[in-house]
Amino acid sequence: MTGDERTVVVEREFSHPPEKLWRALTLPHLIEEWLMKNNFRPVQGHHFNLQGEWGGVLDCEVLIVEQNKRLSYTWNFPHENQEFNLESVVTFTLTPTDTGTRLRMEQRGFRPHQKQAYQGAKFGWRNFFSALEGVLERS
Amino acid sequence: MTGDERTVVVEREFSHPPEKLWRALTLPHLIEEWLMKNNFRPVQGHHFNLQGEWGGVLDCEVLIVEQNKRLSYTWNFPHENQEFNLESVVTFTLTPTDTGTRLRMEQRGFRPHQKQAYQGAKFGWRNFFSALEGVLERS
Repeated sequence: MTGDERTVVVEREFSHPPEKLWRALTLPHLIEEWLMKNNFRPVQGHHFNLQGEWGGVLDCEVLIVEQNKRLSYTWNFPHENQEFNLESVVTFTLTPTDTGTRLRMEQRGFRPHQKQAYQGAKFGWRNFFSALEGVLERS
Repeated sequence: MTGDERTVVVEREFSHPPEKLWRALTLPHLIEEWLMKNNFRPVQGHHFNLQGEWGGVLDCEVLIVEQNKRLSYTWNFPHENQEFNLESVVTFTLTPTDTGTRLRMEQRGFRPHQKQAYQGAKFGWRNFFSALEGVLERS
């Protein structure tokens, strides 16, 4: 990955402790409820897939696992058309607050010409965070 | 496509005339509101993409355009892993009723081993239909 790239950042405060957010970020059956079907494991180097409802699939690899603090994995979508081909990295950072946890999601790797993917991710992560909120309320 | 395949069918009654549903099924800016970003055109043989919020993309081709009655297109996701590789066909059928329109969506082409994609589509289309309901209320 060289040259210019754009980054999507979404931050939200949750009224739950970091341990509870960490569970939702790392347990496959909970990840599925707010993000996508998956075969995730919180093990550095583990390869996994995230599968969308409509049949699409992402290729991912775990990069960083710092329990209750930081989780990072690649979020790649290989495609022959460079408009769609995506090589990105998602990093979640959890910071304890007086009332719960601030969750920061950063997705970097969008190329300047990938405006649609970039805009889609901005919108998508807001939806994912709202779904995550629901999972935390129920779990 | 040979051998066994499974089909997802979702049907719902909408309190709007077929002409209004047809608009939502065929105008790109409306399709984007309930389904995905796209470069659709209601022209047989037109190739287009549906792009998910998270960066994934489907390859599609228009097969049937019968105004206000029937719309069909391929819904393909090429992937080297046969668990994910999907060659399917989506067909919408609009039937006028006393109070509006019955919309039937049929997606065929799931292979027997593609249980996750099949289950995901069943769930996904219910969500898409709910979003479509919202678009029809607003438009």
